[in-house]
Amino acid sequence: MAGSSFGTIFTLSTWGESHGKALGVVVDGCPAGLALTEEDIQFYLNRRKPGQSRFATPRKEDDCVEILSGIFEGRTTGTPISLLVRNTSQKSHDYSEIAGYYRPGHADYTFDAKYGFRDYRGGGRSSGRETIGRVAAGAIAAKLLKTLGIEIQAYTRSIGPVTIDPNAFDASAILETPTAMPDREASKRAEAYLENCMKDLDSAGGIVECLITGVPAGLGNPVFEKLDANLAKAVMSIGAVKAVEIGDGILCSQANGSVNNDPFCIQNGHIKKSTNHAGGILGGISDGSPILLRAHIKPTPSIFREQDTVNKNGEEIKVQIKGRHDPVIVPRAVVVVEAMAAITLADALLMNMSSRLDKIVDFYQN
Amino acid sequence: MAGSSFGTIFTLSTWGESHGKALGVVVDGCPAGLALTEEDIQFYLNRRKPGQSRFATPRKEDDCVEILSGIFEGRTTGTPISLLVRNTSQKSHDYSEIAGYYRPGHADYTFDAKYGFRDYRGGGRSSGRETIGRVAAGAIAAKLLKTLGIEIQAYTRSIGPVTIDPNAFDASAILETPTAMPDREASKRAEAYLENCMKDLDSAGGIVECLITGVPAGLGNPVFEKLDANLAKAVMSIGAVKAVEIGDGILCSQANGSVNNDPFCIQNGHIKKSTNHAGGILGGISDGSPILLRAHIKPTPSIFREQDTVNKNGEEIKVQIKGRHDPVIVPRAVVVVEAMAAITLADALLMNMSSRLDKIVDFYQN
Amino acid sequence: MAGSSFGTIFTLSTWGESHGKALGVVVDGCPAGLALTEEDIQFYLNRRKPGQSRFATPRKEDDCVEILSGIFEGRTTGTPISLLVRNTSQKSHDYSEIAGYYRPGHADYTFDAKYGFRDYRGGGRSSGRETIGRVAAGAIAAKLLKTLGIEIQAYTRSIGPVTIDPNAFDASAILETPTAMPDREASKRAEAYLENCMKDLDSAGGIVECLITGVPAGLGNPVFEKLDANLAKAVMSIGAVKAVEIGDGILCSQANGSVNNDPFCIQNGHIKKSTNHAGGILGGISDGSPILLRAHIKPTPSIFREQDTVNKNGEEIKVQIKGRHDPVIVPRAVVVVEAMAAITLADALLMNMSSRLDKIVDFYQN
Amino acid sequence: MAGSSFGTIFTLSTWGESHGKALGVVVDGCPAGLALTEEDIQFYLNRRKPGQSRFATPRKEDDCVEILSGIFEGRTTGTPISLLVRNTSQKSHDYSEIAGYYRPGHADYTFDAKYGFRDYRGGGRSSGRETIGRVAAGAIAAKLLKTLGIEIQAYTRSIGPVTIDPNAFDASAILETPTAMPDREASKRAEAYLENCMKDLDSAGGIVECLITGVPAGLGNPVFEKLDANLAKAVMSIGAVKAVEIGDGILCSQANGSVNNDPFCIQNGHIKKSTNHAGGILGGISDGSPILLRAHIKPTPSIFREQDTVNKNGEEIKVQIKGRHDPVIVPRAVVVVEAMAAITLADALLMNMSSRLDKIVDFYQN
Repeated sequence: MAGSSFGTIFTLSTWGESHGKALGVVVDGCPAGLALTEEDIQFYLNRRKPGQSRFATPRKEDDCVEILSGIFEGRTTGTPISLLVRNTSQKSHDYSEIAGYYRPGHADYTFDAKYGFRDYRGGGRSSGRETIGRVAAGAIAAKLLKTLGIEIQAYTRSIGPVTIDPNAFDASAILETPTAMPDREASKRAEAYLENCMKDLDSAGGIVECLITGVPAGLGNPVFEKLDANLAKAVMSIGAVKAVEIGDGILCSQANGSVNNDPFCIQNGHIKKSTNHAGGILGGISDGSPILLRAHIKPTPSIFREQDTVNKNGEEIKVQIKGRHDPVIVPRAVVVVEAMAAITLADALLMNMSSRLDKIVDFYQN
Repeated sequence: MAGSSFGTIFTLSTWGESHGKALGVVVDGCPAGLALTEEDIQFYLNRRKPGQSRFATPRKEDDCVEILSGIFEGRTTGTPISLLVRNTSQKSHDYSEIAGYYRPGHADYTFDAKYGFRDYRGGGRSSGRETIGRVAAGAIAAKLLKTLGIEIQAYTRSIGPVTIDPNAFDASAILETPTAMPDREASKRAEAYLENCMKDLDSAGGIVECLITGVPAGLGNPVFEKLDANLAKAVMSIGAVKAVEIGDGILCSQANGSVNNDPFCIQNGHIKKSTNHAGGILGGISDGSPILLRAHIKPTPSIFREQDTVNKNGEEIKVQIKGRHDPVIVPRAVVVVEAMAAITLADALLMNMSSRLDKIVDFYQN
Repeated sequence: MAGSSFGTIFTLSTWGESHGKALGVVVDGCPAGLALTEEDIQFYLNRRKPGQSRFATPRKEDDCVEILSGIFEGRTTGTPISLLVRNTSQKSHDYSEIAGYYRPGHADYTFDAKYGFRDYRGGGRSSGRETIGRVAAGAIAAKLLKTLGIEIQAYTRSIGPVTIDPNAFDASAILETPTAMPDREASKRAEAYLENCMKDLDSAGGIVECLITGVPAGLGNPVFEKLDANLAKAVMSIGAVKAVEIGDGILCSQANGSVNNDPFCIQNGHIKKSTNHAGGILGGISDGSPILLRAHIKPTPSIFREQDTVNKNGEEIKVQIKGRHDPVIVPRAVVVVEAMAAITLADALLMNMSSRLDKIVDFYQN
Repeated sequence: MAGSSFGTIFTLSTWGESHGKALGVVVDGCPAGLALTEEDIQFYLNRRKPGQSRFATPRKEDDCVEILSGIFEGRTTGTPISLLVRNTSQKSHDYSEIAGYYRPGHADYTFDAKYGFRDYRGGGRSSGRETIGRVAAGAIAAKLLKTLGIEIQAYTRSIGPVTIDPNAFDASAILETPTAMPDREASKRAEAYLENCMKDLDSAGGIVECLITGVPAGLGNPVFEKLDANLAKAVMSIGAVKAVEIGDGILCSQANGSVNNDPFCIQNGHIKKSTNHAGGILGGISDGSPILLRAHIKPTPSIFREQDTVNKNGEEIKVQIKGRHDPVIVPRAVVVVEAMAAITLADALLMNMSSRLDKIVDFYQN
């Protein structure tokens, strides 16, 4: 519980620094019998890989994953799955300068305050490369969920002032546009906006939205382990996320109950809701409707403008950050949000199996 | 971990239903030596007590707390502190009708889906009365934090369309206005808005804001146990909260890095930030600035208008909810947000003590 | 996790001191739908109640349990079950003297070393009365297990030099002899031995044995969460237990593999073992044979002889303990061992449900 | 919590199978600032390495450890330390035969019962090679403890009928005898006994004893997280351990209180005990005396005699195990017991820092 583990039954422990030898994750509690290959995981890692567009750092990393344990004859065995990604493009000399001062918007100062010193190369553990472990574990969780009919899809909803048009939603665009927007026209405008940010030596923020379909009613718990509470933690734990919304989210605070309440109705003989302001969760428990969440992501803190800050000697200085940086975090964060949502759902799915005596009796007596 | 516990070192386990015999909480991991009386806890419970304004349910409960363990000669002993609040005003006959159908916006349906049946009296465990345990535990956490110079203050930022004016901030108003707004003029307007909602048989949402001062730099962890991630979970776990923001929150997604980055500076010989868009947390670790968060709260789902829903037999019906209900949750949620923030900070404070070898050596050798 | 909670899915949090207002437990994670009454729990509490034989403290306590939450219409709802037992016979003036010195064999000194001070009345939290919460929770776990065909029976195997004859095993004697021995003749000899101890102002130790039948194969996990590891922790966490054995236990260290290995065989078409040296657990996972464990319990540390010790001022002194004390802990510990075994098994049973994908698919698709 | 993690603050997650690509461990929660090299860890791994005596499997593995993260400029950074050991001598063809049947005394059957299938190569996850991760993590814990003056030493106390003579205790012999006995004469006799076992195609068990000195009073918690309870779990979680004793252990059950109680006394102005029957723990909390524990280890289940068992088709068969196997587990288990004790103590040491308010105030205000 020192901060790098997540989950109760389906658990992961990530490790690794931006410029260390490698990064990775140990996934424990994945049920036995799931078909799993390195390709399943690589597909997700490729979605967050750097160097794929002009809006992502040109750092060259293949991010090739190696499965070291937990798989036998192509299936999970129920024992820990260890995944390894070697760093190949560390350029530590790039970072020697930042050892001595605190970059605004970064964790340099807080790491020093907590630990007394830090691995300053590329941000060390606070680098975005930390998400490699999350995404690799998320690929496993997503495959597990898919087996049960649950699908998760995240995408960029907005970058700076440019928001997608829900009526123009085109899922195929998510993997094809450099913005990960499901709206090619909006993407063009966002790209233009980002070009301008780059010219201004500045960076942009945006919103990632995530839709989860096929979730059975009953996942999550009342009180502290609410499904939305765990999703909020999962998503807020991604670096640069500053707000999380479920369903109508921030709009709820201005809505009235007569509008915000979702009426129940009968569809094809099943209990459903005729609207989904709640975003698929009532009282912390999934209600069978799609789960919808949004993550608000701050602009990349590494900008090339001159900035005010202080150094380790306590002197105020001006700095100009060099190196390789994304002008926007959002497009590469899409798969990270998707991964964290998948991990949270997988854990909730397994935790829920022990909630009713009648089903437990069935389980053990059949 | 079945859902009613929270925290790693400073932990709480709450229990109880709206119409059961009692509600309560067991707080474990509170350090020995903290002066603590029933009055300390009652003061917080009184802030969430029903029946205190025309915007709160008229249910009459004194919510008197009894300390059953963990205190000796006026101080905590380091062993579990058990707190008990008896229900005195259960009117189960009010609720017999709702046993058979699912109220829109409530957890009736999801509890049935998860557990097969439910304690339908007053919402059972999903009632707002569940927060009694949180508030009682929060009172202890807040006292612990105060001993170390950390103060937490939550208040209503908005109700429906009415938002406080930060320039008119008056802390004394928080405990005196029926809205818990720190702005008496805004409160008047919000009260008028709520009167209208009530006339319309409708309800309203709003925003609770929470400010935490005196936090040392270094609390929280990188990766999953980020301080903001745990605050997000803590606050999102409160029923009716649909979005959580840290610092500038949702504004970050439209901001540029040049504005959103907080420059470091030197003030009185100490490293500080000259702005606080980050809301006091960088890379998941407190940076010594005030921590600021916001919770968006949906309108009370219990409204007196006729609504569409279904019953347990799978028939679509019209219902009109009766009973005693708040037209707005926000004012009574203020102390709950404060409590959850206090609990999260207290745990982070204790967890942080083992982060550096030099301090551990000092601890054990002095 | 501050020390008073146990379990991952089926969890309990106990609280209370010997001379506080009350003791109790919160059980979370018990599946919904289990029929449960106060009588179910009282039956177990009565087995550990003081004052029932001349070998137990004459302190007069009814130890009446009150269920405060988690039950609706006679069945568990899946939400926390809070159980309360009021202390009625505290005589704090008995204990004023021991406030100033450290009783040999007791936790007085270690509590002071850890917490800086202690509730010295009757041992406070380190009193045997702490086990009330364990036994009450164990009653619930035992009922849950019984529903699934798992039965747990503990009994006294030996007191001092007197051991039961397995050939004379008579289960009915467990609840009828003052020693909780399932062998009336051995019990007589143990009683005579205890009478002598009492005359000598001395106390005796002994062994509790526990047999668990009907356990399906597959409970427990490899590596750290082995079923035997969790049973060992559960039982060693009972005050006064100094050794735990599984199956042949200490005999294994002198055995040869050719004897210690249990051959597998086929019985009625099922895979069984023809012997059970392993005590029902292989590689940390139940093998379908009965689980057998033993707890070695030290003599009651409170003896009426004069003893050497030190006081809080750091002076060596002679003390003579007064008050009400059992000359042997073993008979009253029997139900505590049974309770801890039941709690551990219940948790393992629920944890095991998520181990195989095929069964998870069945669970959610049927 | 799926079984491969241990600890609350100082935590480890192990992974890997006997014949997979590699084994390893992620250690999280190690304080920042501890000097640590691969040599520190390799020294411990070498103590458990196979092929070092005629009583250990001749499987040839160098068990070279690689540190992949968490160290910067020679010191721990407070972030996860990932350790990797590649398997180099897998001979999977040796094991093809055992895929179809269940070896007596092994976890083959229980893994199949739990997971539906298993990695049968060399026992997969249930192999003794699983302890590589424990030992590597234990090396880190031991170095941390040493910094604080705590030393842990385990050794073989007995093999079969041969027990060391405490009066002949020679610590230097532990690393030099093939039995890990601290008594060269007893070791000779044990070696002769083992030679006989091997001639008989049989195996032997024994006892590992572990002594921990320099432990401050106050570590551990009352109730479930007792230091002895956690040590019992830690040690019982090692494969083949069937009993755990603390202090006088099994002797307590026949002792009288007048003998078993340890009188407190004053030595050099400090409170001490004049005897140590309790083994350094009272009421679950360390008392400042040396901690003493013993693990009883069963004979190696892999013996070369013909044995009765069943195959996966449910047929009774005779089998004769081939391959490379230790005739006794005990000497190589010594460092594993030491590692698990170190890990448990390190966690207790860090957990204890938050037990007293006065020390917390000191910590944060200095």
